[in-house]
Amino acid sequence: MKVLNNAIITDVPGFLAAGIHCGIKKSGKKDLCIIYSEYPSVAAATFTTNKVKAAPILVNMEHIKSEYIRAVVVNSGVANACTGEKGIEDAYEMAQITSKKLNVKKNEVIVASTGVIGTYLPMDIIKNGIEKASSCISKDGGLDAAEAIMTTDTFIKKCTVEIEIDDKKVLISGIAKGSGMIHPNMATMLSFVVTNANISKSMLSKALKESVNDSYNMISVDGDTSTNDMVLVLANGQAGNEIIDSEDKNYIEFKKALHYVNCELSKQIAKDGEGATKLIEVCVNNAKTIEDAKILAKSVIKSSLVKAAFFGSDANWGRIICSLGYSGADFEPENVSISFKGQKDEICIVENGMGTAFDEGEAKKILDENYIRVIINLKDGEYNAKAWGCDLSYDYVKINGSYRS
Amino acid sequence: MKVLNNAIITDVPGFLAAGIHCGIKKSGKKDLCIIYSEYPSVAAATFTTNKVKAAPILVNMEHIKSEYIRAVVVNSGVANACTGEKGIEDAYEMAQITSKKLNVKKNEVIVASTGVIGTYLPMDIIKNGIEKASSCISKDGGLDAAEAIMTTDTFIKKCTVEIEIDDKKVLISGIAKGSGMIHPNMATMLSFVVTNANISKSMLSKALKESVNDSYNMISVDGDTSTNDMVLVLANGQAGNEIIDSEDKNYIEFKKALHYVNCELSKQIAKDGEGATKLIEVCVNNAKTIEDAKILAKSVIKSSLVKAAFFGSDANWGRIICSLGYSGADFEPENVSISFKGQKDEICIVENGMGTAFDEGEAKKILDENYIRVIINLKDGEYNAKAWGCDLSYDYVKINGSYRS
Repeated sequence: MKVLNNAIITDVPGFLAAGIHCGIKKSGKKDLCIIYSEYPSVAAATFTTNKVKAAPILVNMEHIKSEYIRAVVVNSGVANACTGEKGIEDAYEMAQITSKKLNVKKNEVIVASTGVIGTYLPMDIIKNGIEKASSCISKDGGLDAAEAIMTTDTFIKKCTVEIEIDDKKVLISGIAKGSGMIHPNMATMLSFVVTNANISKSMLSKALKESVNDSYNMISVDGDTSTNDMVLVLANGQAGNEIIDSEDKNYIEFKKALHYVNCELSKQIAKDGEGATKLIEVCVNNAKTIEDAKILAKSVIKSSLVKAAFFGSDANWGRIICSLGYSGADFEPENVSISFKGQKDEICIVENGMGTAFDEGEAKKILDENYIRVIINLKDGEYNAKAWGCDLSYDYVKINGSYRS
Repeated sequence: MKVLNNAIITDVPGFLAAGIHCGIKKSGKKDLCIIYSEYPSVAAATFTTNKVKAAPILVNMEHIKSEYIRAVVVNSGVANACTGEKGIEDAYEMAQITSKKLNVKKNEVIVASTGVIGTYLPMDIIKNGIEKASSCISKDGGLDAAEAIMTTDTFIKKCTVEIEIDDKKVLISGIAKGSGMIHPNMATMLSFVVTNANISKSMLSKALKESVNDSYNMISVDGDTSTNDMVLVLANGQAGNEIIDSEDKNYIEFKKALHYVNCELSKQIAKDGEGATKLIEVCVNNAKTIEDAKILAKSVIKSSLVKAAFFGSDANWGRIICSLGYSGADFEPENVSISFKGQKDEICIVENGMGTAFDEGEAKKILDENYIRVIINLKDGEYNAKAWGCDLSYDYVKINGSYRS
């Protein structure tokens, strides 16, 4: 598997895109994007488990049943959530206008919105925006599209890998947005992955579902699961490999590459959490069950006290062990070892449930880095899990104390 | 029931106390307290459900089985958690020294510690402290005791009520400390309640257990359940009422008064959450079950996004409805109404799952107050619950970015 650092979704054969400013955001930043598949693509998606689902999610839960998906239309700035019947009509209309402009069926269009909850979409602006964007979709529009789905994100989230299946070159490329209200319990805020692999809809769904549980569902910025979360994968079959329709070695290879893309996008979302200064990776090793490992990793990454300590580069391991303790998962406190790992150095701070006589200065040096691994060894079993998050900073409070203004 | 605003625990007949600075805290603030019962008191307690339990909690789980409790010894500054065998020996020694000085049995002493996790108690300092404190216990020591259990708390938490049982004057008075790592799943950080009521140990336990679930267990500052949480009630029987040993009307009266004290202390803890500028009360009304009502109320009060919006006086109701949605509890999103209530005014911001055309200025006026009620009507059933918390401010991050230094 090769990671293509400079590639973007439109480098995948058969996919065009555009990202424009149509007028939803007062800042003048891009706020509407279209991803278009020149060929019929099979699609798989996961949606938020929040009981309050945004209008586009409700529409997509129907459209995803279509045999093929041909286009994705996304606006940022307004989430079209808690907007009642009118919101649902608006989401359908977004699909309708897009389908007409691109000459595809309306149920072949996936719709997404992100931004403030409880506000109606400015449909006149959006209608003009869709018309403008659909007339400028191109092979150069990938980065613009990635930019247009951002809200409080500070950088574009993207990842592309290349694998070979049946000697055919298969690309898998995704873009995502995250930042706040990030604690996916199914999918993250918005993530769109495209591939030219030839794979059946059911195997694509299976691969996505398995990957999502260990990628997007293992990140937390603030413990809040959004009303608009979704992950979508489109596969247009243009690589020309023999169709993947069973769990053979090609499926395994494809799934591994897809999972790599999903994990990278998840980490980028965690790293760009609102106000974040650091990416924190929590590795829970040697748990009794995989469920215990996951619950423990997520409990640490969710703790506001742990996150604030990382912001202050404070090796306050008591908070880590405390957050393991209240997680509800099973482990033996007196077996726990914890170390911090930076780019080069690793320091063991807890051995068998108690603090070691570690050097605070050395610990601080690691905690001052911008990518820190917390490695927790439970010595209880053979299951491992990873979760990703970020620190809790003044800026998180600043951003969220006045998000709407 | 009369609320005695100026009273403190030592106003309850038969209870003496002292609070002193013995040298654990470098700041020079009070850090050791003793509460002494002149008469044998029956006791009831609840302890943290965190799997990682501090040494004093482990000792108390044994001592609480004693027929009577005669003294409580508490240090602040060091939590004596994650300190292994030595920590447990130290906690036993605290009980031992106290029992010797006060001439009671060592298993009649309850021990508590609060502060940094993972540090050993400075036993020489504590030994001297216990000797000094036990020689100055008095009827004037109640406030000093309340002060000595504080860590990052900014004010003393206390509540006293008076009721009549069998024409006898019964006082119930408590002190507590809270601030950070507050999300009790059994009891809050530390709360000590004393009464002169004559009540059996089993009925006292029953009353406490029932009350704790709707008071301390319904507050959250940061979602972190501490390793040291405990609530203790001592009843010395000196009121002279006929013993309460069944669920008669006297029990109901006593329980109601005890619950009032517990709720007031809980609210004071929430109000004084680390960095808090406001007390938030979330009332979930007309839920299908009592469990749903409680889960929903706690989900709102726990949301970092909701808490940050309150800090910024931003009527961002989308976050409230979002946090109801991911709680896991059952309700109909399209039935939900939400209003904000201040000292005088109330404003309805959500009606049937959608925003009303409320006046932002009026909403901000209420949100600028320091005690805000969020009233959520589910129109789904007949069960109500209340939860208390605070806003998320810059100071929470500041305090917790460098707690140990």
